[in-house]
Amino acid sequence: MTENTTHTPRGKIMLVGLGPGSHDYLTARARAAIGEADTVIGYATYIRLVKDLLEGKEIVKKAMAEELDRAIEAYERAKLGKKVALVSSGDAGVYGMAGPTFEVLFQAGWTPDSDIEVEIIPGASAINTCASLVGAPLTHDFCAISLSDLLTPWPTIARRLNAVAYADFVVALYNPKSGRRTRQIEEAQRIFLQFRDPKTPVAIVKSAFRPKQRIEFTTLDKLTEADIGMLTTVLIGNSNTYVKHGLMITPRGYANKYDVEVGNRAAREGEKAGVSLSTGLNGWLAAIHGSDKTPAELALEYRLPEVYIRSVLEHPPVDLADADDSGEE
Amino acid sequence: MTENTTHTPRGKIMLVGLGPGSHDYLTARARAAIGEADTVIGYATYIRLVKDLLEGKEIVKKAMAEELDRAIEAYERAKLGKKVALVSSGDAGVYGMAGPTFEVLFQAGWTPDSDIEVEIIPGASAINTCASLVGAPLTHDFCAISLSDLLTPWPTIARRLNAVAYADFVVALYNPKSGRRTRQIEEAQRIFLQFRDPKTPVAIVKSAFRPKQRIEFTTLDKLTEADIGMLTTVLIGNSNTYVKHGLMITPRGYANKYDVEVGNRAAREGEKAGVSLSTGLNGWLAAIHGSDKTPAELALEYRLPEVYIRSVLEHPPVDLADADDSGEE
Repeated sequence: MTENTTHTPRGKIMLVGLGPGSHDYLTARARAAIGEADTVIGYATYIRLVKDLLEGKEIVKKAMAEELDRAIEAYERAKLGKKVALVSSGDAGVYGMAGPTFEVLFQAGWTPDSDIEVEIIPGASAINTCASLVGAPLTHDFCAISLSDLLTPWPTIARRLNAVAYADFVVALYNPKSGRRTRQIEEAQRIFLQFRDPKTPVAIVKSAFRPKQRIEFTTLDKLTEADIGMLTTVLIGNSNTYVKHGLMITPRGYANKYDVEVGNRAAREGEKAGVSLSTGLNGWLAAIHGSDKTPAELALEYRLPEVYIRSVLEHPPVDLADADDSGEE
Repeated sequence: MTENTTHTPRGKIMLVGLGPGSHDYLTARARAAIGEADTVIGYATYIRLVKDLLEGKEIVKKAMAEELDRAIEAYERAKLGKKVALVSSGDAGVYGMAGPTFEVLFQAGWTPDSDIEVEIIPGASAINTCASLVGAPLTHDFCAISLSDLLTPWPTIARRLNAVAYADFVVALYNPKSGRRTRQIEEAQRIFLQFRDPKTPVAIVKSAFRPKQRIEFTTLDKLTEADIGMLTTVLIGNSNTYVKHGLMITPRGYANKYDVEVGNRAAREGEKAGVSLSTGLNGWLAAIHGSDKTPAELALEYRLPEVYIRSVLEHPPVDLADADDSGEE
């Protein structure tokens, strides 16, 4: 925020994550950033989401796939001392404008202490907003994969789908399908079916928190029959995810540490609240180091690469007796 | 929102994601939900983040690892017709209170049309807020893994770390370390080093957007030397991620489709804006189906499971000539 010595006032690029788009889910800072902007640049759909906040401002609407164009437009105006808001739905960093903007700025020789300030205003991404509408699917490890092969070779995408289907992540598919890009979702389904139960719950959320919002629950084997398009996020559960009363829930852990009954707040026998599971790292290290099995057998038993088992065996724990843990969540 | 026929007013549980915690990053709906609550329940640190919004309300502070307790407290008050805000930092669904709350409600025989309404208010999760402070690390596929083994067996966590390290995701580690739970981050580092360059950029963000905010850049090989604790999120880049001028950037794709120069907005030779890459799904299918190589050789070449290559070969594309794509982002 240092003042420039030239006559041009210091410009600013604000990368604004709008969240789902409804004003209720704008952060105070996102709203203020749009308020202080001279120019607002974005894909036409995103501009429409905030149109009542734009009076008196220069508006630059762009088509999709013109991300570099948007970043260049922002740079050119900020260079003249303007305050520019680059608006995106969701989070500006998640497959968003933050990346292309820095690419353009770096190419132009920009540095953080030069004549243009850059601010990124985070927001809830589609994975978060869609999850909040269907229940609690993200209570455990998750990932986001874009099925768009406009900038990513298919083998890279397929490698990722294979990895996370095997490792039992909850998965959000971004850009699952477009007018002519229809086979990617079928390939994704086929990869998942190699590792996951056909009845794995899937939620398909379109235009979350917008007037045309639509939520559909299905299962992995029927995924490609669902209505999926450009404004859709596909959420695939993990092996513990279930749907009950129209809500998609991923339990917190894999261990059923607690008997979840109202009035019974105690942990199960052999487990302790706030402490690592008996099958947590220390317990597992003790089991591995005390085992007579070969690394290959252990790899098979725990479905882990043999190279990892070998490296664990080469690094014995300092003190297995000190296997206690402090409370946390 | 239907009215009950009993005399007790309908209770409500609002699961409020506070985002990073600073009021600037509260959504309008999160703020309004706290405003309309009779009771606010949360971990003491989260309660403190919104303390100036709590006048006249009943406050129930809980320790960490008492998530079920919090959910039960919320249920018991909502049952009496109270409006209860369960506040969490970040997104209420991401390793958050939404899961335990539904567990408790289901156990109590609750259904969505019964006497307690449930609303989830999404917010930016730690992965998003931390990313916004370090640059643009989430421009490509990413995942979140919690290193806490309080509810998850270590082999499950290790399997996930292996999978995503191999498949080149940007990875956010949640709950990386606690007072006594210190070896998990060392194991994570060792797993990543099996697949990733030791110089892979890592950002370590503590207390994002709060007074004690601290950002440290390091590399994978030095990760365990960094100051990591309970309020830290660890962001590990993918193989294309770089740090420049103190900013961590993940490029959009893997293909350098565009010559990123200001003034040059054209795609590279052989590629077209708004259209799948030549190595996208259709291009790759054509290459695979036209190849003389065995499935095993192709699996090796593309680092994909042989079973996937075989299944692709069994499902020839309907029309490889129609390999065009519509514009999107």
